[in-house]
Amino acid sequence: MSEFKVLEIKKSVFEDNDRQADLLRDELKKNGVFLLNLMSSPGSGKTTTLRRTIEALKDEFKIGVMEADIDSDVDAQTISETGAKVIQLHTGGMCHLDAEMTKQGLEGLQTSDVELAILENVGNLVCPAEFDTGAVKNAMILSVPEGHDKPLKYPLMFSICDVVLINKIDVLPYFDFDLEKCKEYVLKRNPNAKIIPISSRTGEGIEEWTNWLREEVKKWRA
Amino acid sequence: MSEFKVLEIKKSVFEDNDRQADLLRDELKKNGVFLLNLMSSPGSGKTTTLRRTIEALKDEFKIGVMEADIDSDVDAQTISETGAKVIQLHTGGMCHLDAEMTKQGLEGLQTSDVELAILENVGNLVCPAEFDTGAVKNAMILSVPEGHDKPLKYPLMFSICDVVLINKIDVLPYFDFDLEKCKEYVLKRNPNAKIIPISSRTGEGIEEWTNWLREEVKKWRA
Repeated sequence: MSEFKVLEIKKSVFEDNDRQADLLRDELKKNGVFLLNLMSSPGSGKTTTLRRTIEALKDEFKIGVMEADIDSDVDAQTISETGAKVIQLHTGGMCHLDAEMTKQGLEGLQTSDVELAILENVGNLVCPAEFDTGAVKNAMILSVPEGHDKPLKYPLMFSICDVVLINKIDVLPYFDFDLEKCKEYVLKRNPNAKIIPISSRTGEGIEEWTNWLREEVKKWRA
Repeated sequence: MSEFKVLEIKKSVFEDNDRQADLLRDELKKNGVFLLNLMSSPGSGKTTTLRRTIEALKDEFKIGVMEADIDSDVDAQTISETGAKVIQLHTGGMCHLDAEMTKQGLEGLQTSDVELAILENVGNLVCPAEFDTGAVKNAMILSVPEGHDKPLKYPLMFSICDVVLINKIDVLPYFDFDLEKCKEYVLKRNPNAKIIPISSRTGEGIEEWTNWLREEVKKWRA
């Protein structure tokens, strides 16, 4: 039987979120903890991608996962089966996490023995992009069924992410999704974005993604 | 060449959104305008479903569509090709529409000669559920690729919607989506919800949906 804690996080009292985020990053650097903020729409495959990521990296790093959701524990349940340390964060209706809320989550997770912490943010392409969580890197998932026009419609999310994973490429034949056009739109929003097409179901592309993540964690902890 | 207006909507100054929403509904009732608020995640198929809806009902009602988006005009462009009156609302980064913002949109659309007004809300399963837009009925789309667990994770959205359209049922064979379980979860959140499986691509289920909508518009305008 898998075990995880559920934390009802409190609304942040800090007005200056950017400052709190910088302070959190400094603390993480000092403690050798790499924090990844993973964002996407509901249903893009964050949890399945996370399972793949944990499988690929769990022998190299101690991994801790924070599952943020309005309600329910289904994602924490899924992740706990990988053997990674996991905590479920309930946002109480809030549509995003900020740095202070993330800090509450990290404390709940007990980061002292975690080297790679991953925050699965609330499923939402709008609000989470507006709040620096204190993460070292931001990643997002766009899935094929959502359509290749999303970078045009949700500009901020695409512009703040270091990596854009294009997930569910195994179902490309069943959707009108133009991968080249999608890449073009992403780069229009963010010329520095690294774009990796993946299928978290078949495992395609996961190696490229976890190679990137491994190098970033090593650089941060060096 | 299709033509539509783009409106940069202003943030609402009213604190009491519920009161503003009731006032707007009263005004719509007086003018014989039925307002539908259509919500979903990014990429669930709101715009394609809307095209189907307009095709089915355009000979019976004068239809006006408000396309709310953070940025871009791609949806208004698509809808304008149906011949329906359409306006693009840019929310300037805001993640939802409230009653006053909706009113700005209706005024931009010139509702005097519209019988069925449809608001395509910002793609987001969290924030739009928190703000009454003044709509007569709320509808949402959940698409098969998003997964059947979404009613567990986004409770408010499912509980405030009169209709839940389960879209993209043409790709059911390619996803691990349990339709019966999904219906059970929706009804757990909202025992009165009408659930209609559709495919806006193939047209399956669209007749049941537009029959429901037609009856609601007639009742409201009676």
